[in-house]
Amino acid sequence: MVVFLFLSLLSVKYLYDRLLSDPLPVPRIRHYNWEVKYEYKSPDCFKKLAITINGQTPGPTIEAQLNDVIIVEVKNSMLTEMVSIHWHGIHQRGMPWFDGTGGVTQCPIAPGDTFVYKVAVDVPGTFLYHAHYGLQSEHGLYGMIKVSLPPGDSEPYTYDYDESIILVDWYHKSTYEQATGLSSIPFVWVGEPQSLLIQGKGRFNCSTPELETGLCNTTSPECSPHVMTVVPGKTYRLRIGSVTSLSALSFEIEGHNMTIVGTGGHNVEPFTVKNLFIYSGQTYSVLIKTDQDPTKNYWIVSKIVNRNSTTPNGLAIFNYSPNNPSVSPPTIPPVGPAWNDVDSRITQSQAIKARQGYITPPPQKPDRVIVLLNTQNMIDGYIRWSINNVSFNLPGTPYLIAVKNKWHHVFNQTSPPDGYDYRHYDIFSPPKNVNATYGNSIYRLPFNSVVDIIIQNANTMKPTESETHPWHLHGHDFWVLGHGKGKFDIQNDPKKFNLVNPVMKNTVAVQPWGWAALRFRANNPGVWYMHCHLEFHSFLGMGVVFEEGVEMLGQLPKSIMGCGDAKDFHKP
Amino acid sequence: MVVFLFLSLLSVKYLYDRLLSDPLPVPRIRHYNWEVKYEYKSPDCFKKLAITINGQTPGPTIEAQLNDVIIVEVKNSMLTEMVSIHWHGIHQRGMPWFDGTGGVTQCPIAPGDTFVYKVAVDVPGTFLYHAHYGLQSEHGLYGMIKVSLPPGDSEPYTYDYDESIILVDWYHKSTYEQATGLSSIPFVWVGEPQSLLIQGKGRFNCSTPELETGLCNTTSPECSPHVMTVVPGKTYRLRIGSVTSLSALSFEIEGHNMTIVGTGGHNVEPFTVKNLFIYSGQTYSVLIKTDQDPTKNYWIVSKIVNRNSTTPNGLAIFNYSPNNPSVSPPTIPPVGPAWNDVDSRITQSQAIKARQGYITPPPQKPDRVIVLLNTQNMIDGYIRWSINNVSFNLPGTPYLIAVKNKWHHVFNQTSPPDGYDYRHYDIFSPPKNVNATYGNSIYRLPFNSVVDIIIQNANTMKPTESETHPWHLHGHDFWVLGHGKGKFDIQNDPKKFNLVNPVMKNTVAVQPWGWAALRFRANNPGVWYMHCHLEFHSFLGMGVVFEEGVEMLGQLPKSIMGCGDAKDFHKP
Repeated sequence: MVVFLFLSLLSVKYLYDRLLSDPLPVPRIRHYNWEVKYEYKSPDCFKKLAITINGQTPGPTIEAQLNDVIIVEVKNSMLTEMVSIHWHGIHQRGMPWFDGTGGVTQCPIAPGDTFVYKVAVDVPGTFLYHAHYGLQSEHGLYGMIKVSLPPGDSEPYTYDYDESIILVDWYHKSTYEQATGLSSIPFVWVGEPQSLLIQGKGRFNCSTPELETGLCNTTSPECSPHVMTVVPGKTYRLRIGSVTSLSALSFEIEGHNMTIVGTGGHNVEPFTVKNLFIYSGQTYSVLIKTDQDPTKNYWIVSKIVNRNSTTPNGLAIFNYSPNNPSVSPPTIPPVGPAWNDVDSRITQSQAIKARQGYITPPPQKPDRVIVLLNTQNMIDGYIRWSINNVSFNLPGTPYLIAVKNKWHHVFNQTSPPDGYDYRHYDIFSPPKNVNATYGNSIYRLPFNSVVDIIIQNANTMKPTESETHPWHLHGHDFWVLGHGKGKFDIQNDPKKFNLVNPVMKNTVAVQPWGWAALRFRANNPGVWYMHCHLEFHSFLGMGVVFEEGVEMLGQLPKSIMGCGDAKDFHKP
Repeated sequence: MVVFLFLSLLSVKYLYDRLLSDPLPVPRIRHYNWEVKYEYKSPDCFKKLAITINGQTPGPTIEAQLNDVIIVEVKNSMLTEMVSIHWHGIHQRGMPWFDGTGGVTQCPIAPGDTFVYKVAVDVPGTFLYHAHYGLQSEHGLYGMIKVSLPPGDSEPYTYDYDESIILVDWYHKSTYEQATGLSSIPFVWVGEPQSLLIQGKGRFNCSTPELETGLCNTTSPECSPHVMTVVPGKTYRLRIGSVTSLSALSFEIEGHNMTIVGTGGHNVEPFTVKNLFIYSGQTYSVLIKTDQDPTKNYWIVSKIVNRNSTTPNGLAIFNYSPNNPSVSPPTIPPVGPAWNDVDSRITQSQAIKARQGYITPPPQKPDRVIVLLNTQNMIDGYIRWSINNVSFNLPGTPYLIAVKNKWHHVFNQTSPPDGYDYRHYDIFSPPKNVNATYGNSIYRLPFNSVVDIIIQNANTMKPTESETHPWHLHGHDFWVLGHGKGKFDIQNDPKKFNLVNPVMKNTVAVQPWGWAALRFRANNPGVWYMHCHLEFHSFLGMGVVFEEGVEMLGQLPKSIMGCGDAKDFHKP
């Protein structure tokens, strides 16, 4: 009873805060009709099935203005596959059912059905959308969301043009072949991607032996390199996003420095780099001056840096107008940084701070600290990723529906562990106990509480190997309080946290044998997935779920129902 | 009000009839737990993904006894695909929601969900089960159901052993690749199957150029030929079923005649053939005497007869015990009948009559005659099959749910046409008007009325081409009143109908430029799909739907809900 009253008061306070903070502008509605279906595409010259939106992959770039409401009617025209679309980096405050996470916030959309997403862009910046079911994002269902300021408002930096580029790695096998291999004994790894796409275009070596005739065509216009045409003597704001399924990338433009000014929905203290390290689920805004010799074109390069990959670098053309856009630059493309130069990546991550004047100060102390140890393990002979020895598996009924209805039978009601055997665990060696368990329990957070998440990377099952994991949190941005190498020191490292000007992000890269410390406030009623954004890793169990304030939500929409126990839903 | 009373009386009468006709035996329950998922399989030596049941394709043979109730718990463990399973030839009287036709009688099963099918086998004989959603049957989800008589009861023929064989054609491309090609402009036809499987085993030529290394392995035990081991001097009842996705087959056992004694759930007047013509969706029981030279093995052969196919004949081994089962017969396999010998096929079809003493006499007159003209057409540039110029498309909400709830908005409420322009249409020429329309309306039949269906095959869009279509009706067997070549003569052909001893079937083959005349009584409350059983043809619109007596049904089970408007179902 007391608890109930407390929660109700919180709820009232929450609504009251919302009223005060929002000047209640009349939102502008942007309406999209999307048909999702398979089409044959040759983005790297190799013809294969891709999941497209209105025939396109990447999907259309959504260009919105702060406080717009985007209505996307998604018609699933795939033959037998369900689908859901996640609005990555957008908090969906007050409507967590439109987060688009299949199995967490909704039943995915059945073939033939149309689902109407409502997406409120209440923060300016650069966001992503992508499928959030199975391995469908990796199959081509992704795109970018640009949210601009209203006329009259301006960014704390100036530019002449606003452009965007989205990066992925690209595989030729179907998601079903990949998923079956990953779920087999013996484990069949997906291997290196066949190519890297820049704005949906790449190049595979069609002279590879054993290709079926007609499948690979280097003269296909679909795989001509992406061209970014620029005018000399200008400043470009370039929004760069990555939705890779396995790769961390270095991105650079030959001969041009980039000044990083923003990430996600946040301005950062400007700093200049030759190459940007970008991890799956991240977006950056950089400024580029077109101040080089304008008589020639330059290479745009993406390169895999988290593995010693055989995949050729992705190439696009930075075309100084009026040069011929289809003429390759006269130079050899830059080779990019060494794949194993982890220090440079950590240095760049650590250099990213909130911009003066745009700092949202973090709470000074957490109410709870959760340590997430990332390891590879075995379960019944299957290779899996696990968090504190628990490998995540979705239950059949989406969490949001189960929690709201207090259907305790849907998932294990015991909290997952808040940490691991910190004293005895050697993060530099393969796990001694490789036996993990499957789990579907969730962290339930008191509404408005402050939570620290320490993500600790450990050695994989292979000696002297640890991987890079970009962890993404739904429904929130978190403060990045610190990054480090080695084992997080629970006594001393918190003393070094940046509580002054930490950047806020929705996706943070955790480097091999390294850690990242994050803080967020559980102030967005809903159920939120947090997971490694490498789709193959989350498929293999690398995720956790947080719940906060679901009791404050009104009736869930009927449209998210249809699976598991949610076939015959009545208001509780 | 009068209508309502009438229907209520019918309902009471129906239940009363059921009580009188059934001696209410205590049914034996047979419980199956099936997990449906993708696995790599090499049934013809070529490794590809197949949809399996508990790791098998074909799925397990269900062996039941008359009046058993089979409970099958189907867990969908595919990553993103929905699925449903149809119990082919079984009428599901009183529980049409367990017919398993995705989009017609149920929302298909979502990934992670478990659906419990109840299947009452109230007729002895040989039936099939297979996926009935998308092109999943063709991908490996199929199997056989043997229903035997209770101990003490006997068939009107004797045999020593009861064996079964199931036949399919097999493609190497995924259903998604096939479906995308079929739904493209220009149309990409699936082409000939790569092999024919006999009881899940076949042989592809692994020396075909351009095969990726490791995909094809002639030494894989998975593709050793199927062996049927027999004892000399005995009589075998062999149940043969076909679930081909494109092919009509001739089936023979070298040097052995076969005496056809049954089809589906019916005994037929015995007659002996060298080769059995079997069409997708059909089952036959034949008797084979092992009266040949027992010192050697013999070939079992399946051959495509409805097209001039390049696919090699399917081969298996008829092994006389104690010969080595893995030793190929010393002979060249029989080549089978000429593919274009249509007359032999018509002759065999016409020879099949109900067995004396086992005749269910047909009603002597129909209440309604529906003529279904089968043509190829174009819609908006897409190649489709159509019935009376209407190409069938499923609505988003299953018919059974929409009809029961009187949701008139779900599909077009106008009946599809009962015929075509009979006087002027030239069935021997490509259609003059190739423009068809999509349609989702259904034939609503007064309960217990007698309906004649005349299926008329016409020329395709290609000059001098017409195809073979095996039409299958759910929920019923129909009397086959006649077959013929050319245009059905609506005045004179009905006079030649066999009303004395017509065979009853659930699937009838209609030959090129030919017709078949069927009669059934609309006495099974439900919504029933009728369609060409070639999966590629029904995918392209070759189907119709009948409704009868849905108002008599009780509340629909919650488990069939979850898609379209059926997410929030309340009892009407």
